[in-house]
Amino acid sequence: MELSINSECFHKAISEVSKAVSLKTPFPILTGIKITAEEDALVLIGSNSDLIIEKKIPLTIDGARVLEVKQTGSVVVTAKYISEIVKKLPGDIHVKADGKQLITLQSGEIITSLKGFPSEEYPNMPVIDESSPIRIPSTELLEMIKQTAFAVAKNESRPVLTGVNLFFKENHLTCAATNSHRLALRELKIDSNIRGSFIIPSTSINELVKLIPGETEIIHIFLSDSYIVFKTADSSLFSRLIEGNYPNVSALIPKDSKTVITLDTKQFLKGIDRACLFASEWKNNNVHLEIINGSRLKISSTSSEIGRIEETQPFKNIEGGSELSISLDANFMIDSLKAIKEEEINVSFGGSMKPILIEPVGNPSCLHLISPVRSY
Amino acid sequence: MELSINSECFHKAISEVSKAVSLKTPFPILTGIKITAEEDALVLIGSNSDLIIEKKIPLTIDGARVLEVKQTGSVVVTAKYISEIVKKLPGDIHVKADGKQLITLQSGEIITSLKGFPSEEYPNMPVIDESSPIRIPSTELLEMIKQTAFAVAKNESRPVLTGVNLFFKENHLTCAATNSHRLALRELKIDSNIRGSFIIPSTSINELVKLIPGETEIIHIFLSDSYIVFKTADSSLFSRLIEGNYPNVSALIPKDSKTVITLDTKQFLKGIDRACLFASEWKNNNVHLEIINGSRLKISSTSSEIGRIEETQPFKNIEGGSELSISLDANFMIDSLKAIKEEEINVSFGGSMKPILIEPVGNPSCLHLISPVRSY
Repeated sequence: MELSINSECFHKAISEVSKAVSLKTPFPILTGIKITAEEDALVLIGSNSDLIIEKKIPLTIDGARVLEVKQTGSVVVTAKYISEIVKKLPGDIHVKADGKQLITLQSGEIITSLKGFPSEEYPNMPVIDESSPIRIPSTELLEMIKQTAFAVAKNESRPVLTGVNLFFKENHLTCAATNSHRLALRELKIDSNIRGSFIIPSTSINELVKLIPGETEIIHIFLSDSYIVFKTADSSLFSRLIEGNYPNVSALIPKDSKTVITLDTKQFLKGIDRACLFASEWKNNNVHLEIINGSRLKISSTSSEIGRIEETQPFKNIEGGSELSISLDANFMIDSLKAIKEEEINVSFGGSMKPILIEPVGNPSCLHLISPVRSY
Repeated sequence: MELSINSECFHKAISEVSKAVSLKTPFPILTGIKITAEEDALVLIGSNSDLIIEKKIPLTIDGARVLEVKQTGSVVVTAKYISEIVKKLPGDIHVKADGKQLITLQSGEIITSLKGFPSEEYPNMPVIDESSPIRIPSTELLEMIKQTAFAVAKNESRPVLTGVNLFFKENHLTCAATNSHRLALRELKIDSNIRGSFIIPSTSINELVKLIPGETEIIHIFLSDSYIVFKTADSSLFSRLIEGNYPNVSALIPKDSKTVITLDTKQFLKGIDRACLFASEWKNNNVHLEIINGSRLKISSTSSEIGRIEETQPFKNIEGGSELSISLDANFMIDSLKAIKEEEINVSFGGSMKPILIEPVGNPSCLHLISPVRSY
């Protein structure tokens, strides 16, 4: 293998695939990146047991030559060292690997040699049927993830809840995440007849968010029994799926409510955030909501040790009864309110021990459900 | 105590004095900030056993009214909570404290109450003779600190070495820091006849750096047997001094050398930084320097497990013999080179087991000494 490559392109690609590389793996070869020089591209692969990231560097980017392959071949080198070296080498880098797993990187007067691993021992990529991709614009996919993924369970007691659920049915995709105390749900119309329910580990989802480009681009999604693949023009992310049955979350959504109030999203978020101050002294970050005189919402939090904070906010509209007194986890509220981009929300209450439903006004594709906490 | 104050000014002052407040103190009252409303200013004090920071907020700043005192008095409140609250309150804050150590902060519809401590139990400030201050421009003081303080000892086995030494003698100040393997030294002409040697804890020095304003201002320094005080227009920092005798560091500076080479500071720094890659695999971050053919400097680092990096750099000038082979701690080199703002340096070598001397070309007020490490 012998090639010349622009150091900036090389470093960017190494950084991206490195995100799938774990330092703690029991298999030394998986601490490495597989670098394959093909006739017309350099292919980099980083992986761990859950995730594979593949990145292609073409010969030219935006008309500028970034890669010249003199001899094809492949090598595996420790991600940590190659990343550090390439970051610090200026200009173009001349890369050469001999048969003995020794890779040499030269940039001007600077010569580095790194010991590698035999590339034939690197695990093979899973085989995926690429015949019928699901196509989703990158901006919509990103938004859908950001509006739901925060709600996954952080502890592993029910593994299916640590992932994000994608439920496909007749040109329709429902994305859901829940930790059984809160639920975030987002729907999307898609152009695919695929059916089925898939659970993606939230660690993979977090890496996907970093990999998806800011510019609008169509992401191709492929599914198999054990893998999901997200493909952009020059990157692919393969994620293992979590086995098991995801709960039927749509059954949890309350059909009726005693009181619905319309609030300004940002103002409500600020109020909850302020009340959070003493809420952190509670086990569940309790903030208390109460309707005062049928016309204002009181947000308060008290710690007998430290003090008390309270404020009242007007609401735009109220439907149903005006009796309300409920305690909620402030962090769950903040996560949901931050995920809503609409200016106004409808908050529906069913009683002090029933979950509250938060829906952005004018956008029926998105909802958040939060269970109350006991305040005594 | 009753007053109105601009929330931004209040928050800035609270943040600054909070830096002296430790959460881990055995005295609950020291987790608090003492807030005293005087007729014409609000005075905030935060402290721990080593450090006191005092900040004054005047009635007006740049002609704009920021403070109105309705009733003088003082109160002590937990730094953590008052800081969090004030950060989140918009506009002006109305502050009121009753006799029962309860402080109320109100901003529009938002009302907060915090339990405080009896202010008479807060420790008194040390009494300092302010009759003959040493005056140093803030920019020079900052530069002096940044060029030396990094070299203090990180472990406590010799407490005097954990501090920065200020040595005053006939209109002359020498600032030094050493961990016994490296030394950073900076001299400054001052207008004061004070004599004596004082050791300031590096934690106090780090807080001082954050407190000194970016704009040029004269810092007033006062000294007593156990305290040093740095005073700007609106802040004071009192630091405990470290007891003990500081080593006579000027005796360590070598008087003669076998070889002196002149190098480009930034280029040399980049070379050492690159070589650092494998250096981290060694206990002492070894990088090796060698003169090649009397005309170039070779910088290299080798790890038998991982690989090797090497480069050669030209030097501008050489005096003395051209035989040189020495191993040094790369991190010590990087710290010193980063502290030098001049474009060129003279590096003097006395032999492979003698410390090297780094001096910026054209600036005799600053030097760095680094001991070699064994490379076998």
